[in-house]
Amino acid sequence: MADKQCVKIGIFKCGNIGSSPLFELILDELADRQDIKARILSTGPKMAVEDVEETLPKMFELDPQLLVLISPNPSIPGPAKARERFSSSGLPSVVISDAPAKRIKADLEKQNIGYIIITGDPLIGARREFLDAIEMAIFNSNIIKVLAITGVYRIVQQEIDKLVHAIKSGTGPVLPRVVVDINTIRDNSDFTNPYARAKAMAAYELTEKIAEVNLQACFIEKESGKYIPLVASAHEIAQMAARLAEEAREIEKYGDAVVRRPHSKEGKLKVKSKLMLAPSLDDESNKKP
Amino acid sequence: MADKQCVKIGIFKCGNIGSSPLFELILDELADRQDIKARILSTGPKMAVEDVEETLPKMFELDPQLLVLISPNPSIPGPAKARERFSSSGLPSVVISDAPAKRIKADLEKQNIGYIIITGDPLIGARREFLDAIEMAIFNSNIIKVLAITGVYRIVQQEIDKLVHAIKSGTGPVLPRVVVDINTIRDNSDFTNPYARAKAMAAYELTEKIAEVNLQACFIEKESGKYIPLVASAHEIAQMAARLAEEAREIEKYGDAVVRRPHSKEGKLKVKSKLMLAPSLDDESNKKP
Amino acid sequence: MADKQCVKIGIFKCGNIGSSPLFELILDELADRQDIKARILSTGPKMAVEDVEETLPKMFELDPQLLVLISPNPSIPGPAKARERFSSSGLPSVVISDAPAKRIKADLEKQNIGYIIITGDPLIGARREFLDAIEMAIFNSNIIKVLAITGVYRIVQQEIDKLVHAIKSGTGPVLPRVVVDINTIRDNSDFTNPYARAKAMAAYELTEKIAEVNLQACFIEKESGKYIPLVASAHEIAQMAARLAEEAREIEKYGDAVVRRPHSKEGKLKVKSKLMLAPSLDDESNKKP
Amino acid sequence: MADKQCVKIGIFKCGNIGSSPLFELILDELADRQDIKARILSTGPKMAVEDVEETLPKMFELDPQLLVLISPNPSIPGPAKARERFSSSGLPSVVISDAPAKRIKADLEKQNIGYIIITGDPLIGARREFLDAIEMAIFNSNIIKVLAITGVYRIVQQEIDKLVHAIKSGTGPVLPRVVVDINTIRDNSDFTNPYARAKAMAAYELTEKIAEVNLQACFIEKESGKYIPLVASAHEIAQMAARLAEEAREIEKYGDAVVRRPHSKEGKLKVKSKLMLAPSLDDESNKKP
Amino acid sequence: MADKQCVKIGIFKCGNIGSSPLFELILDELADRQDIKARILSTGPKMAVEDVEETLPKMFELDPQLLVLISPNPSIPGPAKARERFSSSGLPSVVISDAPAKRIKADLEKQNIGYIIITGDPLIGARREFLDAIEMAIFNSNIIKVLAITGVYRIVQQEIDKLVHAIKSGTGPVLPRVVVDINTIRDNSDFTNPYARAKAMAAYELTEKIAEVNLQACFIEKESGKYIPLVASAHEIAQMAARLAEEAREIEKYGDAVVRRPHSKEGKLKVKSKLMLAPSLDDESNKKP
Amino acid sequence: MADKQCVKIGIFKCGNIGSSPLFELILDELADRQDIKARILSTGPKMAVEDVEETLPKMFELDPQLLVLISPNPSIPGPAKARERFSSSGLPSVVISDAPAKRIKADLEKQNIGYIIITGDPLIGARREFLDAIEMAIFNSNIIKVLAITGVYRIVQQEIDKLVHAIKSGTGPVLPRVVVDINTIRDNSDFTNPYARAKAMAAYELTEKIAEVNLQACFIEKESGKYIPLVASAHEIAQMAARLAEEAREIEKYGDAVVRRPHSKEGKLKVKSKLMLAPSLDDESNKKP
Repeated sequence: MADKQCVKIGIFKCGNIGSSPLFELILDELADRQDIKARILSTGPKMAVEDVEETLPKMFELDPQLLVLISPNPSIPGPAKARERFSSSGLPSVVISDAPAKRIKADLEKQNIGYIIITGDPLIGARREFLDAIEMAIFNSNIIKVLAITGVYRIVQQEIDKLVHAIKSGTGPVLPRVVVDINTIRDNSDFTNPYARAKAMAAYELTEKIAEVNLQACFIEKESGKYIPLVASAHEIAQMAARLAEEAREIEKYGDAVVRRPHSKEGKLKVKSKLMLAPSLDDESNKKP
Repeated sequence: MADKQCVKIGIFKCGNIGSSPLFELILDELADRQDIKARILSTGPKMAVEDVEETLPKMFELDPQLLVLISPNPSIPGPAKARERFSSSGLPSVVISDAPAKRIKADLEKQNIGYIIITGDPLIGARREFLDAIEMAIFNSNIIKVLAITGVYRIVQQEIDKLVHAIKSGTGPVLPRVVVDINTIRDNSDFTNPYARAKAMAAYELTEKIAEVNLQACFIEKESGKYIPLVASAHEIAQMAARLAEEAREIEKYGDAVVRRPHSKEGKLKVKSKLMLAPSLDDESNKKP
Repeated sequence: MADKQCVKIGIFKCGNIGSSPLFELILDELADRQDIKARILSTGPKMAVEDVEETLPKMFELDPQLLVLISPNPSIPGPAKARERFSSSGLPSVVISDAPAKRIKADLEKQNIGYIIITGDPLIGARREFLDAIEMAIFNSNIIKVLAITGVYRIVQQEIDKLVHAIKSGTGPVLPRVVVDINTIRDNSDFTNPYARAKAMAAYELTEKIAEVNLQACFIEKESGKYIPLVASAHEIAQMAARLAEEAREIEKYGDAVVRRPHSKEGKLKVKSKLMLAPSLDDESNKKP
Repeated sequence: MADKQCVKIGIFKCGNIGSSPLFELILDELADRQDIKARILSTGPKMAVEDVEETLPKMFELDPQLLVLISPNPSIPGPAKARERFSSSGLPSVVISDAPAKRIKADLEKQNIGYIIITGDPLIGARREFLDAIEMAIFNSNIIKVLAITGVYRIVQQEIDKLVHAIKSGTGPVLPRVVVDINTIRDNSDFTNPYARAKAMAAYELTEKIAEVNLQACFIEKESGKYIPLVASAHEIAQMAARLAEEAREIEKYGDAVVRRPHSKEGKLKVKSKLMLAPSLDDESNKKP
Repeated sequence: MADKQCVKIGIFKCGNIGSSPLFELILDELADRQDIKARILSTGPKMAVEDVEETLPKMFELDPQLLVLISPNPSIPGPAKARERFSSSGLPSVVISDAPAKRIKADLEKQNIGYIIITGDPLIGARREFLDAIEMAIFNSNIIKVLAITGVYRIVQQEIDKLVHAIKSGTGPVLPRVVVDINTIRDNSDFTNPYARAKAMAAYELTEKIAEVNLQACFIEKESGKYIPLVASAHEIAQMAARLAEEAREIEKYGDAVVRRPHSKEGKLKVKSKLMLAPSLDDESNKKP
Repeated sequence: MADKQCVKIGIFKCGNIGSSPLFELILDELADRQDIKARILSTGPKMAVEDVEETLPKMFELDPQLLVLISPNPSIPGPAKARERFSSSGLPSVVISDAPAKRIKADLEKQNIGYIIITGDPLIGARREFLDAIEMAIFNSNIIKVLAITGVYRIVQQEIDKLVHAIKSGTGPVLPRVVVDINTIRDNSDFTNPYARAKAMAAYELTEKIAEVNLQACFIEKESGKYIPLVASAHEIAQMAARLAEEAREIEKYGDAVVRRPHSKEGKLKVKSKLMLAPSLDDESNKKP
C-alpha cells in the first residue's frame, strides 16, 4: 500500500548525455515529493560491460518499482547488457537515449522496454586537443539549457510521471515509445508566443546539427588540423543554441507568460503562467495515462 | 597492484548543488582514463537519513578506494549520517559542499574527512510558485557554467586527482581542506587576460549574492508577494553570472589563450593554450601531492 | 506668499555618491518648474571639515527654505559638521547618503534631520592603479543608470517633493526616515511586468555586492596584486548591473508600459504609461504628505 | 605661496549638459589631490539671469583662482551674465559648453574667456510627454558614458590641468580655445586598437545626430504625434551610442590595453596600460603648457 | 489585354545603392505573381555614359511597360543619359535614388519622371584601404536590413505596385514624387509598438549620419590617416543601425504583431499580423491609386 | 587588344540565391576596376523557360567574353535552357548555384561549364503566411552577411578573377569545378584567430541547417500549422548565423587582424591586415591560374 503510494525509481546512468545529469531532479525539483524516491546508480562516463555488470546488480537489491536507463547509444555492449537485465527483471523499464537509439527501437520493443529517444541530445566534441573538464562542462551547460527550455525535459518528466501515476494507481503502466524530434517540440511546446516557439525550435535544430558535426569530427576526420576546427565550431553552435533558447524564454517573460509546472508534494502537476499567482492543479497533466 | 593502478572512486550524492551533476565527468571528461573508475550512488534530491541508510551501504559493497560525498549543507542529519559512515570506513574521504559547510570544518577535521567548500555554489530559489523542472534546470545550467569557467571545477578536479595519484603511488593521500572563495578564484585562475579574470571573479561574486537572496526568499520571507520577486531576481542574477563567465571565456578565445587541461589516458594532466596545437604533459599539475 | 509658492532648496554636496550628480535635475527635469529653485553648493570630491566650513556658510546667505546634504558616510567629520549646521539652522533638513549612514540613524533623528539612505549606492573602486577620470565616470554612469531605472531616484524625488509641497502649503513638513533597500525596490516599483521588476531588483542587489567587494579592495587588501582584481571585478559588476537595469526598462518598452512621471510647471506630478498619450495629473502622488 | 600650490577652482554650473554632472570629479577622481580645491556653485537646471545674479556673487567671496562656467548655449541671457562677471573679474576663466557655443567663439575671445566646446554634448529630449526624472537620468548616464570613453572628459580634464599647472608654477595660463569634434576624437584618442577608436568615433558621431534630432523635436515640431517619436528615437540613439562606446572600451580590455591616466596626489598625471602594473608619471602630460 | 494583365517592368540599375540589390525581389517575393514580369539590365558598379549607352537600348527591345532606374546620384552623366532615354520613351518612368537626387527633383518633374528618393540610403566607405569585397557586402547587408525593417522597401514596393495596378486597370499611372526621410518613416510605419517605431527611426537616422561621415571621408579628407578612421566609424554605425532595426522587429515579434504584407498571385497585397494566421486581402493597399 | 585588357563579363541571373544580389559588386567593389566591365541581365525572381528565352539572347548581343549564370537549382527547365545557350555559345561559362546543383555536376562538366556550388546558400522560407518583401529582404541580408564573412564571396570572386586574368593574358581559362562546403570554409579562410574561424564555420553550418528545415517546410509539410513554425525557425537560425559570422569578424577586429583584399584599378588583388596600413599587391592571389 504505502509502497504503491511511494514509488521507488531505480535510475541507472551509464555514460553521459544531456538528459542525464539532472534527470532525477526534474522529477522532484522541490525535493519534497512524497510519492517517489529516486535511487541512482552510475558508472560515470564509462560504459563498458564490466562497469555495468559490477554496478547494476546493486540496483536490484534496492527494490525499485520502475527502472530507467540513461545512456548514449544503447546498442553498444555496456548499455545493451543493462537493457537485458532490465528486460529480464520484469519491472517496467524505460531507456532514455540519443539519436543513434532510433536504430534499436524494434529491439527495445521486443525487450518490452519503453523508450524516450531525443534526437537533439548531441554527441560532445570529444577530442583531447579540445575537450577538458571545463569545455565538457560548458557544453553540458549549454545543452541542458536547450533541453530544458525547448521542453524536452518536460516531455521526459511527464512520461516518467505517467508511469509513476500508473504504478501508484495500480493500473498497468503503458511504456513510452517516444522519439523527441523537431516536430515533437513544435507540437508539444508550452510557449505562448509563436516566435518564442520558433526560436526554441531553432535551438533544437541547432543541437541536431551539433551531433552531425561532432560525428564527423570524432569518428571520420583523422587529422587534428581538420577535426579541431570542427569540434570547436560544434561547441560554438551549442553556445548559440543556448542563447536562442534563452531568448525564447525571455520572450515569454516579456509577456508574463512563462508556463511553470511544479509538482505538488503529492506528485501531481500544478500549472501557472502569471509569475505572481499561485499554481493550480493541472487537470490535463494529471489524468490517468 | 592493478587495483592501485586503477583507483575506484565511490561518489555519494545526496541532494544537489551546482558541483554535483557533472562531478564524475570532470574527472574523466574523455571517458578514456585508465587509472580511475567511478561508481556513483545517489538519493536524488532527497537527503533524509533513511535515504542515506538504505542507499549508502551499497557503496561499500563496491569496494571503493576513495570516497566523495557531494551534498548541500552536510550538517543536516542525512549527509551527517553519510559523513559518519565515511569516517568509520577508514577510507580516504572528501566532502564537497556549499557555504553552510564552513560551519562544520572543525567537525570534518575531527572525522578525518577532507573538504572542498565552495562559497559560490548557491541555494536554488526553491519556491513552488517559481521553481518547476525547467526553472530548476536553467538555474543549474547557469551555475554549472559559472563554476566551470571560473575554475572551480578545475580546483575540485585537481584536488581529487591529487588523491588519486597518491593512492596510485601508494603514498598516503593528504586530504584537502579547501574553501573556494573569491580569493581562491583570483589567485588560482587560468586566465591570461586580467579583465577576463575580473569578469570571472565578478561572476563568482554574483553567485554568492544569489545564495544570500535565496536564503532570504526561501527561509525568511513568508508571503508569496514578497518571496516570489526575490527568487526571481536571484535567478536573474544567475543568468547574468553565466553571461559574465561566458564573456570571460570569450576574451580568452579572442587572444587564442584558452587554457585547456585534458587528462591523458594514464590520468596525467596535459595542458595547452593555442587551440590548434597539441596538449603536452603539465609537469606542474602532475607532481606528487 | 510668493516665497511659499516658490521654495528655494539649498543643496550641499560634499564628496560624491551615485545619488549626487543629478540630484537637482531629478527635481526639475524639464527646467520649467515654477515652484522650486535649486541652489547648489559643493566642495567637490573633497569632504574635509575645512572644505565644509569655508563653503557651507554661503548657503545660508542664499536663504534656502529646505536643506539637503548629499554625501557618502555622513558620520565622518566633514559631513558631520554640515549636519550640525543644518541642525542648528532650524530649517527642514534632509541627508541623502549611502549604506554606512545606517549606523547614524539615531543621531540624525536626534538632530531632527530627515534621511534617505540608499543601501545600493556603492563605494567606487578608488585605487590609483585602476581609477582614473574615465573609469570613475563610467562607474558613475553605470550606477546612475541603476539608481534611475530601479526607481531609487523616483523615491528620492518624491520624498523631496513631499517636503516642497508641505512648505508650499504651509503645513509642517514631515521629514523622511527612509532606508532604500531591496525590499523598498520590490514594494515601490513602477514596473508592470514582474520579470522587469525582478531584473531591476537583481540590478540593485548587484550594487550592494559592489559595495561589499570595493570595501574589501579599498580598505582591507593591501597588495596591489590582490586589490586590483577586486576593484576591477566590482566595476564589471557595475556594468552588468546597468545592463540588467536596462533590460528591465526594455521589457517595459516592449509592453508600451514605461511609467513616466514628469513634473508639471506647477510642480505637481503627472503620470502616464502609453508613450503616445499625454500625461495626466497623478492624484496619488500629489496628495498632501 | 601655499595658495599657489593649492589652486582653488571656482566652478559655476548653470543649466546642465553632459559635461556638467561629473566635472569636478574628473579633476580629482581619487579625491586626494593636494594641489586643487573645487568650489562649485550651481543654479541647477534653471539658467535665468536672476538665478545667476543671486548665486554667482557668492563664488567670488570664496576667492577662486580659476573660473569655469559650464552651461548649455552660453549666448542666452543667464550664462551671458555669468560670462560678463567672469570677464570683468580678471581671473583666468573658461567656458565649457555645447555646439551652439560655436557661434560666440569670437565674443568669448573678446571677453578673454577660454572655451572648450563639445559638439557631441547633445540637447536632451525635453518634452513633457517623454521626459521625466528617470528618462532624464538615463539619458545623462548614456551621454556620460560616451563622453568618458571617447576621451572628451580626458581632453577637458587635461585643459583644466594645464591651467592649474600654469597657475601653480606662476607662469601665465594660456586659455584654451578648443572645439572638440569628431576630428579631435580621432586625433587625440588613447585607443590602441584602431577598431576600438572607430567605434568610439561612431559613438561620438551618434551624439551629434542626437542633438540634431532633438533640436527638431524640441523646437520645430509642434504636434505631440510628431515630436514624441523623434525624442524617443533620439534617446534610443543615445543608448546605442553608449553601447558602442562600451564596446570600444571592451576591445581595449581584451588586449589589456586600456590606457589609464590617474592623478598623483601632487596633481601630476600618471599613465599605465597593463592592468596589473603600477602607473608611472606621464612626462608628456605634465609638461608645462 | 493579356499584356495589360501582366505588366512587364524594365529595371535599369546603374551603380549600386542599398535599394538596388533586392529591388525586383521586393515586388514578387514569392516568385509567383502572375501580373508582373521583371526584366533587369545593369551595368554593375560602373555608371559611365558609355556603359549606359551600350546597355540601355536592349531594355527597349524587351518592350517594357514601366521603367525604373535605380542609381546613386542621378545627376551625373551616366544616369542622366538614362533619364533622357526614359523621358523620351514616353513610357511611365521612375527613378529610385539617394539623397543627392533631391537636388534634381525639378529636373525629374520636367522630364516627367517619377521619383522615390531615399535620404537614408547612404554612400559606402569607398576607400581602397578599407573597402574590399567582404567589407562592401557586409555594409550592403546592414543597409538592406535597415531599409527593409524601417519600411523603406515597403514604401518603394507600394509605389511601384500602384503604378502596376494603374497600368493593369488602364487608368493613367500617377508617377510618384516621394522623398523618404525620417518623417516618412515615422508617419508610414507598420509598427504596433511605439518604441519599436522609435528604434526603427533611430536606425534610419543613423543611416543619414553614415552618408554624412562617408561623404567627408571619401571626398574631403585626403590623408589616409584621416579618412580610414572615418570610413571605419561609418561602417560601425551601419552595423549599429542594423542592430537597432533588428531590435525594432524583435519587439514586434514579442507582441506577435509583426505586420506582413505578402503579394497574392494576382499581385494584390494581403496583410496579417498574428504569425499563425493566414493573410487576408488588404483593402486599403489595393485601392486604385 | 584593348578588349583583352578589359574583359566584358556577361552575368545572367535567373531566380535568386544569396550569391546573386551582390555578385557583380564583389568583382569590382570600388567601381574603378579598369580591366572588367559587367553586363547583367536578369529575369528577376522568375525562372521559367520563356523568361530565359526572351531575355538571354540580349546578352549575346552585348558581346560578353565570359558568361556567368547565377540561379538556384540549375536543373529545372529555365536555368537548364540558359545552360544550353551558354554551352553552345562556346564562351567560357560558369554556373554559380546552391546545394541541389551538386546533382548535375556531371552534366555541367559534359556541357563544358564551370561551376561554383555553395552548399550553404539556403532555400528561403517561401510560404505566403510568412514571407513578404520585408521578411525576404531580412533573410537575404542575413545570408549575405554569412556568405561574405565566412569567405564564400571571396572564393567566388577569386574564381572569377582567375578566369578574367586568364582571358586578359590570352591563356586558356580553366573553368572552376568547386563545391564550397564546410571543409572549404575551414581550409580557405582568411581568419587569423582560430575561434573566429570556428565561429564562421558554425555560421556556415547553420546555413546548411536552414536549407534542410526550409526544404521540409516548403515542400513536405502541407498544413500551415506545421510549416509556419518551421519557416519561422529557419529564419531565426539565419539571424543567429549572421550574428555568429559578425562575432567572428569582430574577433578579427579585436586583434587588428581583419584581412582585406581590395582590387587595384588594374584588377590585381591587394592584401592587408592592419587597418591603418596601405594594402600591398598579393602575389599569391595574382599568380596565373
